[in-house]
Amino acid sequence: MNKVITISREFGSGGRSVGKLVAEKLGIPCYDQELIQKIAQESGYCEEFIAEKSEHHNNKFLSNPFAFRDYYGNSIQDKIWLAQLKAIVEVANKGPCVIVGRCADFILDGTADLLKVFIHADNKTRAHRIVEQYGEAEQSPEKRLKEKDKRRAAYYQVNTDKKWGDMKNYDISLSTSSLGIERCADIIVELYKS
Amino acid sequence: MNKVITISREFGSGGRSVGKLVAEKLGIPCYDQELIQKIAQESGYCEEFIAEKSEHHNNKFLSNPFAFRDYYGNSIQDKIWLAQLKAIVEVANKGPCVIVGRCADFILDGTADLLKVFIHADNKTRAHRIVEQYGEAEQSPEKRLKEKDKRRAAYYQVNTDKKWGDMKNYDISLSTSSLGIERCADIIVELYKS
Repeated sequence: MNKVITISREFGSGGRSVGKLVAEKLGIPCYDQELIQKIAQESGYCEEFIAEKSEHHNNKFLSNPFAFRDYYGNSIQDKIWLAQLKAIVEVANKGPCVIVGRCADFILDGTADLLKVFIHADNKTRAHRIVEQYGEAEQSPEKRLKEKDKRRAAYYQVNTDKKWGDMKNYDISLSTSSLGIERCADIIVELYKS
Repeated sequence: MNKVITISREFGSGGRSVGKLVAEKLGIPCYDQELIQKIAQESGYCEEFIAEKSEHHNNKFLSNPFAFRDYYGNSIQDKIWLAQLKAIVEVANKGPCVIVGRCADFILDGTADLLKVFIHADNKTRAHRIVEQYGEAEQSPEKRLKEKDKRRAAYYQVNTDKKWGDMKNYDISLSTSSLGIERCADIIVELYKS
């Protein structure tokens, strides 16, 4: 079984940067945007569509009953989820790596030697970060954070039947606002090596 | 400001052992049972009474309106809480240390250079640990864990107005069931030193 680091993260916490830094320090690949490309290829949908849809929930009972379904009863979200499963298992089988987001902690449970990490930060740091990274928007940064949190929580809950952001689902949870991105990365690297 | 490590922990997670090991490795004191002695001295109640009462909640509105109150309207719980505040601030002012439990993370916020840690473990490990450490009881281990979790959560919530076990309240959260007590201690020691 390959050693895989999964990084779940709050929007604006810098979790993606932590993941990239960890991968760089360990000399292993970090999958984030690359996964979207893979899922797009696998499912036949374009990357933009995947990026948007793959954080919407996937519950057959809650979703629109009139939504298009194929011959097997699969909705678009089902198809994307299946492509995502396949892409994540595929990269984990290739070799040690870091995977950011996409329920990889849940998908790979039992099939890889996992180090399950959650990255969070206080709301002030997150608000500052999203404006810096993605620019201003019509909505306030606080509202953007709240909506994204809600969406990620629903997506995780529906697909994994677990509570997103519950520390009990992770081996280690770190705050970038108190520890800094570099220190968080160093802790993960040390843990991976030991 | 002294550097203080506060360790909040789930019952049966081994958080107390982690705290002791960290203190030993750093050559600084670890306050746990010693705090109960201090609070007993300060409040005038015996240690057994403190140990029992200091995990019951402290809400004037929810608690028994007919409970005994002194001239200032303080209940027994209020008096113990005040003695606890004093004891914790006193030990933190003495020098760098580790403090296990007792809302020390909340009490010292802003008055010490804090590293706020939460220690958890999966329920199987916890159940095994409490039977090993405290013996069998009439209730099942699962029920004992559930009751203790509920009590700690209520105690923390009422006294701090924050959610107990919410990773956002801590700098780092660690699972002893996946990482082991020794490794958790090493991570905290490294963080403290850096």
